[in-house]
Amino acid sequence: MTMQRDRLYLFDTTLRDGQQTPGIDFSVEDKIAIASMLDEFGMDYVEGGYPGANPTDTEFFTKKRTARSKFVAFGMTKRAGVSASNDPGLAALVQARSDAVCFVAKSWDYHVRVALGCSNEENLDAIRASVAAAIAAGKEAMVDCEHFFDGFKANPDYALACAKTAYEAGARWVVLCDTNGGTQPSEVRAIVEKAIAAGVPGRNLGIHAHDDTGQAVANSLAAVEAGVRQIQGTLNGIGERCGNANLVTLIPTLMLKSAYKDRFETGISPEQLVGISRLSRAFDELLNRAPEAQSPYVGSSAFATKAGIHASALVKDPQTYEHVPPEAVGNRRRVMVSDQGGKANFLAELKRRGIEVPKDDMRLDALIAVVKEREAEGYAYEGADASFELLARKMLSGLPEFFAVTSFRCMVERRFDANGQLKTVSEAIVKVVVDDEEKMSVAEGHGPVNALDLALRKDLGKYQNEIADLELADFKVRILNGGTEAITRVLVESHDSTGARWWTVGVSENIIDASFQALMDSIIYKLMKNREMAGLVAAE
Amino acid sequence: MTMQRDRLYLFDTTLRDGQQTPGIDFSVEDKIAIASMLDEFGMDYVEGGYPGANPTDTEFFTKKRTARSKFVAFGMTKRAGVSASNDPGLAALVQARSDAVCFVAKSWDYHVRVALGCSNEENLDAIRASVAAAIAAGKEAMVDCEHFFDGFKANPDYALACAKTAYEAGARWVVLCDTNGGTQPSEVRAIVEKAIAAGVPGRNLGIHAHDDTGQAVANSLAAVEAGVRQIQGTLNGIGERCGNANLVTLIPTLMLKSAYKDRFETGISPEQLVGISRLSRAFDELLNRAPEAQSPYVGSSAFATKAGIHASALVKDPQTYEHVPPEAVGNRRRVMVSDQGGKANFLAELKRRGIEVPKDDMRLDALIAVVKEREAEGYAYEGADASFELLARKMLSGLPEFFAVTSFRCMVERRFDANGQLKTVSEAIVKVVVDDEEKMSVAEGHGPVNALDLALRKDLGKYQNEIADLELADFKVRILNGGTEAITRVLVESHDSTGARWWTVGVSENIIDASFQALMDSIIYKLMKNREMAGLVAAE
Repeated sequence: MTMQRDRLYLFDTTLRDGQQTPGIDFSVEDKIAIASMLDEFGMDYVEGGYPGANPTDTEFFTKKRTARSKFVAFGMTKRAGVSASNDPGLAALVQARSDAVCFVAKSWDYHVRVALGCSNEENLDAIRASVAAAIAAGKEAMVDCEHFFDGFKANPDYALACAKTAYEAGARWVVLCDTNGGTQPSEVRAIVEKAIAAGVPGRNLGIHAHDDTGQAVANSLAAVEAGVRQIQGTLNGIGERCGNANLVTLIPTLMLKSAYKDRFETGISPEQLVGISRLSRAFDELLNRAPEAQSPYVGSSAFATKAGIHASALVKDPQTYEHVPPEAVGNRRRVMVSDQGGKANFLAELKRRGIEVPKDDMRLDALIAVVKEREAEGYAYEGADASFELLARKMLSGLPEFFAVTSFRCMVERRFDANGQLKTVSEAIVKVVVDDEEKMSVAEGHGPVNALDLALRKDLGKYQNEIADLELADFKVRILNGGTEAITRVLVESHDSTGARWWTVGVSENIIDASFQALMDSIIYKLMKNREMAGLVAAE
Repeated sequence: MTMQRDRLYLFDTTLRDGQQTPGIDFSVEDKIAIASMLDEFGMDYVEGGYPGANPTDTEFFTKKRTARSKFVAFGMTKRAGVSASNDPGLAALVQARSDAVCFVAKSWDYHVRVALGCSNEENLDAIRASVAAAIAAGKEAMVDCEHFFDGFKANPDYALACAKTAYEAGARWVVLCDTNGGTQPSEVRAIVEKAIAAGVPGRNLGIHAHDDTGQAVANSLAAVEAGVRQIQGTLNGIGERCGNANLVTLIPTLMLKSAYKDRFETGISPEQLVGISRLSRAFDELLNRAPEAQSPYVGSSAFATKAGIHASALVKDPQTYEHVPPEAVGNRRRVMVSDQGGKANFLAELKRRGIEVPKDDMRLDALIAVVKEREAEGYAYEGADASFELLARKMLSGLPEFFAVTSFRCMVERRFDANGQLKTVSEAIVKVVVDDEEKMSVAEGHGPVNALDLALRKDLGKYQNEIADLELADFKVRILNGGTEAITRVLVESHDSTGARWWTVGVSENIIDASFQALMDSIIYKLMKNREMAGLVAAE
């Protein structure tokens, strides 16, 4: 017997409300990359920003940026006092390359008066006319009722009138926004019920919650229980002030908890859900920030147990100690006491790379010890697969020494040039030994690391042809503790003409040194990979 | 007319469940410091740990560590098969220097059988006998019913029997624990109601929630609404896996939100509540980690606005844009400067810094244009308040040129030393002109930026004394696009002996150059601040 389940629609506003996060500024390239991650993951709607409000968003909306998700432009309703056809802002908005338009509309009478300076009726008229304009342009229309919950407390009739006007004008979605973020779940539930009773069907209602009392997720779920069918939120809960509802937390709850999964379905498949940990981490990577270890479902600690009364029982019987299976969200169990679990992980990881080693091989214990020690120093092998593989091969099966760098020198000089302009020049000199022959190369670059990279790859003798297609795709620096004498971790992403991508890591109190390690690993990995593909590793 | 409000009791388990956080290990000194912070803040109960389980906790319990809060020892109920008086573990626990004992007891029959290996009746007997032993020793007794919610779903009668047995044996508190953290608020509410209906009064019930679905706060509040009167949680929500209910979020909600403050009172006064931002930050300081900017109530972004559309209205009328006044929790409003913000943002931010400028001053438009242009290049002034202030003063009111750096040179060299060891040396040389006198300084550092920092601050002539207390607290690097020739943004945090902290920014394709800009801004800001405090800016 199959039960009819209601469809819930997921609306991502990472690129719009997420852009309001203090400290976060997306470039157009960032936005393109994020939209494609969201599209692929299976969001129903991807709100891209506010075309016309700033050059980034305007450029972003010159093309449609999603394949499957509906691509949404955000903007204000028409100004009071002009007709929709005479409002250039509205015209630009409905002409942006989007599938849908989300209008933000005041629904608290106080703000209509003070912020818009128009009458309540003019605001309703603006909602009506804007929705009509979007529909006339062939777009799906939706209306974010700003300050809906606070507005409802102050003047319930007017807040409801705004929502009803949007619905009756033909908006597919009327989104109730807790703009200030202070509403409690019991209030959300009661007010949503009143909106439905006033005539806006739950299947046309959305919820937009903020985390100012740590309850954006709970408020979203309370609204769903009361009848709304669209949830707005962001990746990793970024957003204005304390952030928006975290979709990375909400989606697994909706899909795995019987309170929801028995009643609702989303547009995301169980297979896509497995990608949610990777999605969350890739997004943090793009923001160049460390993932939050304690994040629900996806954090590295979310299924970790540290010693004591739970750990041994957990190993025997994980189901009764874990609220969901970690594999369902692409995460993994971590039992931090026993290195048995650790060893199994290592073996699995090595096997995945084609390195077979017996479980009781002493060299395996040595490798585990070195990895643990290096991770304590700041290396992060989870994010640097190529460096891990090089280390493992070196310790388990040996690795040829293709070439050696006997010394390098980087110089950065800032001074006035002949025309009296300040100029900064970076230069690197590298001494390399290949086949007992010493070669010295020098290069200038945009900075010391770029100069070093260029000098290092300038002349590797007989290997030079082999690295011609090696390119650095990304370079990330993280300072692991405070001050200019801090430990620095450098991650380098490389790719080549075969389409392969690999990450390498270097750690040092000296950023140049850390970069050097990661650059070296990248070149050596490339040489090793070439040989492996030719079946030559053992022969060299 | 005064309304009778129910008393809610706050139970802090930072030192016990918080100790289960992956990556957190408290020393005895840490525990003493934290207990005293909690005591002073006004918690009703401070759970100190598990005496007998490890040397740290055993030593910690050789003395009572709180003055006003009740000091609680945590441990297991007596073992099955021995009498309470013959269980050395139980004897040690009730003899620890505490006011109260919190026993953890299984309340899921499956775990009684599998983990304890005893009968359901023996487990009830252990609860009964343990509570009696604590009371006989003159202690307040409480029982944490482990896995209560999951246990209730599996066998409601047995879970209720455990709670009832504890209550009837004389436990002051019977705490319902969502040990695996996956229970939803609607389930918490329903199950608490059943526990009360079964005969355990709400005034004797507590809630212990975990954040595995991001709802530890909501679950705690749902339990309070259903009748419980004790809430367990931790500072900043640390704890096993995804953490415990965050008391730093819960306490302001209970005290400031009418859904709770009208019905309940806590042991914390409004004056103590003002100290909660400081408490939260001091705790992170002790853990040596950066405070979470987006934390509800206490985060640096909790009352920050970046958006143009909200910022201008916020300045006019903060009450309708803030869910609570930031001062109530010892936090402050921040209107952030960024290319998203309008003129009103700039004016508000300038005013806060004591820079008054008329709205129609052309120089203001020029400043906004420069900020927008620089932010497009990669500068991030919202995270670099001091660099923003310097730029604003330079363009609006003039800034003295204290000194000039005519050139610098950084060198990083890696080579074998006399002992055949690879060694990396960083050296910087700086030429500075102060009062027409050129000074040349050289320094070695842990890396090129550290060397440059040391050389720059080595001899600034007449200003040298003034910067003696300037220290760099943090240094962040962000690569703004891929590859080693990428644009680099450097943020530097500085502080001095007055307790002031400021952030400066530099952007360049050269990381050394970017660092140089941020270091220079930091020194100049310090010099300007010194003059401003002495009322000398205009005079110089």
